[in-house]
Amino acid sequence: MAVLPSPVFAPRGSTAEVEQGHQFQPKFDADGLLPAIVSDALSGEVLMFAWMNAEALRLTLASGYAHFWSRSRRTLWKKGEESGNLLSVRELRTDCDQDVLWLRVAVEGSGMACHTGSRSCFYRILTPPSAPAGEIGLRHA
Amino acid sequence: MAVLPSPVFAPRGSTAEVEQGHQFQPKFDADGLLPAIVSDALSGEVLMFAWMNAEALRLTLASGYAHFWSRSRRTLWKKGEESGNLLSVRELRTDCDQDVLWLRVAVEGSGMACHTGSRSCFYRILTPPSAPAGEIGLRHA
Repeated sequence: MAVLPSPVFAPRGSTAEVEQGHQFQPKFDADGLLPAIVSDALSGEVLMFAWMNAEALRLTLASGYAHFWSRSRRTLWKKGEESGNLLSVRELRTDCDQDVLWLRVAVEGSGMACHTGSRSCFYRILTPPSAPAGEIGLRHA
Repeated sequence: MAVLPSPVFAPRGSTAEVEQGHQFQPKFDADGLLPAIVSDALSGEVLMFAWMNAEALRLTLASGYAHFWSRSRRTLWKKGEESGNLLSVRELRTDCDQDVLWLRVAVEGSGMACHTGSRSCFYRILTPPSAPAGEIGLRHA
């Protein structure tokens, strides 16, 4: 039994209901998590990627600020709680299979979403190997 | 031993090397997979989310077209091979921890990235419950 009140996550319906329905019927993975993509609501830039459990999703919907589940620390995590770079959720979407979330946000505070101090965690571009067994490089965007 | 030649995936270095280095040192998960976010290179719209193993990543880098690993079918999958809606990769990024990929693509064929016939898999927006224990709805974007 949940300690805190939670929204009802409807059970999975038919494929048609999941793909075209008007009821959120999420499919949490074996660890009870949904992948969550975070992008800037204005620029479209992908800022970060994290995971939500049911409680993180509940807190996000209730507060309007992104909460995640830290798999390494095994704890709930309000993004930006220490840095002030909170993620104000402008829109929250799910995909056809209802097993992924996409958050369109405005980053508060300094506007940096990455713990390294970058605006986005995705600040490096892969450079293909020059030979079949060569190494893959990275260059800063 | 790999059946096909693969690029060398460098071993993980220090946190500083992983976060700021110029060498791709990916951290595949326990199943040998990396989450892959796909967005439209021009509009920034998030189109889909899938998974890559080392071979899918190798094929993507070698061909310029997105390949994934289907967890349900347990097989490699060239996105759009049947529909013609191939994903031409314009840029491939990784995140600070090098355990997530972001593909910026142009969708070929009809331009639809979702198997339902939508341009994006993320065509529905969550609507918060009106009561603490209410249901979460979805509305089409």
